[in-house]
Amino acid sequence: MNNLNAEKENFMRRAVELSDFGMENKYGGPFGAVIVKDGKIIGEGFNKVVSSNDPTAHAEIVAIREASKNINNFDLSGSIIFASCEPCPMCLAAIYWANIDEVYYANTKKDADKIGFRDDFIYNEFEKIIEKRDKKFCQILRGEAMKVFDSWASKQDKVEY
Amino acid sequence: MNNLNAEKENFMRRAVELSDFGMENKYGGPFGAVIVKDGKIIGEGFNKVVSSNDPTAHAEIVAIREASKNINNFDLSGSIIFASCEPCPMCLAAIYWANIDEVYYANTKKDADKIGFRDDFIYNEFEKIIEKRDKKFCQILRGEAMKVFDSWASKQDKVEY
Repeated sequence: MNNLNAEKENFMRRAVELSDFGMENKYGGPFGAVIVKDGKIIGEGFNKVVSSNDPTAHAEIVAIREASKNINNFDLSGSIIFASCEPCPMCLAAIYWANIDEVYYANTKKDADKIGFRDDFIYNEFEKIIEKRDKKFCQILRGEAMKVFDSWASKQDKVEY
Repeated sequence: MNNLNAEKENFMRRAVELSDFGMENKYGGPFGAVIVKDGKIIGEGFNKVVSSNDPTAHAEIVAIREASKNINNFDLSGSIIFASCEPCPMCLAAIYWANIDEVYYANTKKDADKIGFRDDFIYNEFEKIIEKRDKKFCQILRGEAMKVFDSWASKQDKVEY
């Protein structure tokens, strides 16, 4: 194995270590994540859904928020995320919004499903049209909301992301 | 129109108002969200991606985090979210994780696409297999990570979510 692969395995081992720490200390589920840029860890996290009463506090989200804070930028271009499990849809989309370049993962969403997590169910919901989903979706007041979108479109001093 | 619909329109108007406030005050993009339980607002938010340097600070995520904090529970069962735009994949999955029952939205992901947001692009990424996505995905060290999943499976005192 070359040095680059060994380095990647070490970052993943840190993500797995975090997943174990969070679980054992009752912060939440068995998930950890590490974000690396230029060979250095810029953010890491483990699942804190239970301890922080925050359903969005998945390992990857915690790591992304920490990394963004640390480099003072919402754009994490040039970075790699190491996640102890294949990211759920929330975390996957967050990785896109953060412009993280590459995703290394260990366990899969099927593995997560087998120990009681809904990742796979939620992925399947994405494949359904809105009317067929397991949740009621209803569109109202588009006309009023579009006025704000129109203002954004014509705004001169906006910061895009 | 009956009172129930008028009430729902008023909650959506609040979400639209928040979207305008956040945009005008340069917190981030033109998006607002309100979470309602038993007829009362328990959390609200507007996009703060730019102002907080947090790529996950979408209106719905901000509102979910606030609602969970306010009711001291990561489970928002029995609540409804009013979002000024159809939730992006990150926010949609967060709504599932939070067990929010219903989703009211105004603008669509296509409307968001037209004013420069990547919601629609990210939704399309979900339809691709991992190997075909616009980002590199690589699985490593599943054996080591599975040990932690096995520990979770046999753990007696875990809190599930």
